[in-house]
Amino acid sequence: MESSNVMYTVCVLLLLVPRTFTAKPNFIVILMDDMGWGDLGVYGNPAKETPNLDKMAAEGLLFTDFYSASPICSPSRASLLTGRLPVRNGFYTTNEKAKNAYTPQVVVGGIPDSEILFSEALQEAGYRNKIIGKWHLGHRAQYLPLRHGFDEWFGAPNCHYKYNNKNIPNIPVYRDDKMIGRYYDDIKIDPERGLSNLTQMYIEEALIFIEKQAKKKQPFMLYWTPDATHTPLYASEKYRGRSQRGLYGDAVMELDAGIGQILATLKKLNIDRETFVFFSSDNGAATYAHQQGGSNGPFLCGKQTTFEGGHREPAVAWWPGRIAPGQISHQVGTLMDIYLTLLDIAGISYPKGVEFDGHTLISALFNNTEFERPMFYYRGDTLFKVRLGQYKAHLYTWGTPQDAQLMGYHYCPGQYIVNVTTDQMVDHKKEPLLFHLGQDPGEKYIISSSSDEYKAVIGTLLKVVEEHKKTLKRGAPQLNICDSAVQNWSPAGCDEVKRCLPSPKSKPFKCQWPY
Amino acid sequence: MESSNVMYTVCVLLLLVPRTFTAKPNFIVILMDDMGWGDLGVYGNPAKETPNLDKMAAEGLLFTDFYSASPICSPSRASLLTGRLPVRNGFYTTNEKAKNAYTPQVVVGGIPDSEILFSEALQEAGYRNKIIGKWHLGHRAQYLPLRHGFDEWFGAPNCHYKYNNKNIPNIPVYRDDKMIGRYYDDIKIDPERGLSNLTQMYIEEALIFIEKQAKKKQPFMLYWTPDATHTPLYASEKYRGRSQRGLYGDAVMELDAGIGQILATLKKLNIDRETFVFFSSDNGAATYAHQQGGSNGPFLCGKQTTFEGGHREPAVAWWPGRIAPGQISHQVGTLMDIYLTLLDIAGISYPKGVEFDGHTLISALFNNTEFERPMFYYRGDTLFKVRLGQYKAHLYTWGTPQDAQLMGYHYCPGQYIVNVTTDQMVDHKKEPLLFHLGQDPGEKYIISSSSDEYKAVIGTLLKVVEEHKKTLKRGAPQLNICDSAVQNWSPAGCDEVKRCLPSPKSKPFKCQWPY
Repeated sequence: MESSNVMYTVCVLLLLVPRTFTAKPNFIVILMDDMGWGDLGVYGNPAKETPNLDKMAAEGLLFTDFYSASPICSPSRASLLTGRLPVRNGFYTTNEKAKNAYTPQVVVGGIPDSEILFSEALQEAGYRNKIIGKWHLGHRAQYLPLRHGFDEWFGAPNCHYKYNNKNIPNIPVYRDDKMIGRYYDDIKIDPERGLSNLTQMYIEEALIFIEKQAKKKQPFMLYWTPDATHTPLYASEKYRGRSQRGLYGDAVMELDAGIGQILATLKKLNIDRETFVFFSSDNGAATYAHQQGGSNGPFLCGKQTTFEGGHREPAVAWWPGRIAPGQISHQVGTLMDIYLTLLDIAGISYPKGVEFDGHTLISALFNNTEFERPMFYYRGDTLFKVRLGQYKAHLYTWGTPQDAQLMGYHYCPGQYIVNVTTDQMVDHKKEPLLFHLGQDPGEKYIISSSSDEYKAVIGTLLKVVEEHKKTLKRGAPQLNICDSAVQNWSPAGCDEVKRCLPSPKSKPFKCQWPY
Repeated sequence: MESSNVMYTVCVLLLLVPRTFTAKPNFIVILMDDMGWGDLGVYGNPAKETPNLDKMAAEGLLFTDFYSASPICSPSRASLLTGRLPVRNGFYTTNEKAKNAYTPQVVVGGIPDSEILFSEALQEAGYRNKIIGKWHLGHRAQYLPLRHGFDEWFGAPNCHYKYNNKNIPNIPVYRDDKMIGRYYDDIKIDPERGLSNLTQMYIEEALIFIEKQAKKKQPFMLYWTPDATHTPLYASEKYRGRSQRGLYGDAVMELDAGIGQILATLKKLNIDRETFVFFSSDNGAATYAHQQGGSNGPFLCGKQTTFEGGHREPAVAWWPGRIAPGQISHQVGTLMDIYLTLLDIAGISYPKGVEFDGHTLISALFNNTEFERPMFYYRGDTLFKVRLGQYKAHLYTWGTPQDAQLMGYHYCPGQYIVNVTTDQMVDHKKEPLLFHLGQDPGEKYIISSSSDEYKAVIGTLLKVVEEHKKTLKRGAPQLNICDSAVQNWSPAGCDEVKRCLPSPKSKPFKCQWPY
């Protein structure tokens, strides 16, 4: 046997041995808010505002075909933390029309106790967990992070919109299990000037948390999820006016710098080789926000839609010494994969009896091999599209609803494709529209249903859909019931900071959603 | 005076001293054919087919805002080599309608002797110059490369379309000043299978040329301009089917690999630190070619248009030891800048009495500083648009002409912006459409003419246009007269390879162009 053959055999055997991770590595999951695939320099944004993320990618692994489970915030975030589709974890509604329900303050529901979040699994295994930023899995007491596997929290349960404290209270900001103030009232955001120090506070919180755990040699999981790129946009004074892109780009630059600081801190503390960092975003860029929204690069439409612009996410994995630098992976992945990936790395067995939609990404991260798996594109509880290999079949299309257009919103600004960017929800199940995402990432060229290519492929895709549907057990819908009384009137701690507000009487009603 | 101040002063003085280049460095100008900004991995193509170009960018400087002088081949190439706009060097027509004239075989004109190409300036200074690939500056004897500053040539004067040798001859392939065969007849291209060895031949030619000059310590300029990404697409057997994107991506991968070989050869020969390499493309991706065309990333429309997708080009500068690695430049640049940049680097004084449209890029390349300059977007001899800073004013708009659409062509597939992607040439000179390319690289959001922003900016832009027009001296139009007799019937050398074809009688006519 020649020595090259011996070497080959050794390599094959090594690859076959499951990688074990002796110590418990730290985890940092960085999730952006409404940031698009095309917002990073490394994904081609011409403004090139992300030198730190680009460096992170150069030092790690960049995913090109990574997805969120939903084109909208709350369901996407619930899916990340549960490893399960919104239709399973309950982040959807069965109310009329509503395909993109989320969790404003009037929603009664939230993350069910029956869901085991990866924070819970890690906590049980001895990790100390902190979330910094937006939670969005329900704002009522029983739904908050410290009830679901997190030891610490600095951030808010909902989006940072401005309210009047009369019919809608301003959003509380929590430290751990108590509110310390409200947005606008206490935590300053100047929406006219797009000015706030929040991202800097989030950065500082992260650095302090990391340093503290490193000192104690305490394995930790940090879920860092700032929201400066969600409207109303903001950046701190130092970053205002610095980008070519206006406020949106300023916010990107500040977040990028923060990520740079986080990675530098890991290096400084000499725990970079013990820390797995993953960067992504919750859904596609909010193209309806015009220049206040991000970029989905070459992809079609954005947030709210099941076109690539709504679901395709930037994604970078970083772990010096463990993940080889400068890699690109075309593995079809999803935020729901983070769950099992973290558990695998930490050597924790999977919770029993749970039907996960995510897979482990171990093979992609450490061997850069790919496995085939379907990707399902949901809006709410409705399966709109499915991808397998390079093919994507559209069971339903829905671009910008007519009434949204009348209000000046457009999910696909400047884009128009006949029969594809439809202004109503159109059922194509009888003859799904087929696209080849490799040759046509922008979903511009429908593959003719009379072509051999179509006939060769469509059956397999539809079979995948059938199998998926057969095994799908729906969770109880969490976003059906609304009630003004459940809003953040008097969260825990409100008395200490004198921010309790009088609550109206409970009057539950069916939540209404425009689309 | 503190030492840091001394250091600062020394640095400032150093920057102020014009860089002199003691020896004559070699030059390699790599020009792609119809490759788009969004085709490179480093500019965000999800297929990531260009590891070598991405590495080249990581080792050098990447331009984000680099342009061609024309959205179509011949005029763009004439501008590169002359440093002057087509309207000056004659690569336009005054015939009806024709805004995008080029040089098919029936065209009588070509590059005038009065134009001094950078190849001529370099040749005079002792450089040995070779062009490998497509010339496109006129195919009649007096227009060919060896009459215009090149010492060697391997390639063809026109595009590699297939003809019938009856009313139109197949295109000759030249070695130096003689044809050695014709496309399809002798140099095999299989358009059905998209198969040809041409790119491999071009790579080999380049490597041999470089090695030869290095051995002789002969300063050289290589203009490497293969055409595999221009329809009809082709790749060699080794690359067919290798990309996610089909034949177009296969061609990109092969070209990328070739560029990798060229750079590796420079390193192997230890002349990488003596060789300035510049990579770009002649115009935007040919979006009308559907999946047979490339990607213009987030930009609007493509080849044939004056939207960003027609003019914005990938551009990478590489020179180990001289250009610092990993840089990004937002300098607004153009292919016409290459001329004076090469002359500056070679220490050659500029030709006297020539009005250049290009500037030297020395400051961007070696100090990464930016200077402001207007960018003019021409179609033929008509100024359609102007850019200054981040603002772009549209004097004319023209998307896809109606009759092109009827034939199934679309320059802006999947894109539609009211009043912008017009299907006729629309005059906006009275109230130019204004865009901010930083905030809106996709030219989606017209800045309202009643806004303060518009009023503050439009005057300056129009003044720039006026100044430009005042000083503009038009060259005699080269693309007005056509004649079937001037086609490549009997190029020099045809008798030796027995490929002379009978020519019809001369019958000059006014060239007709659809748009």
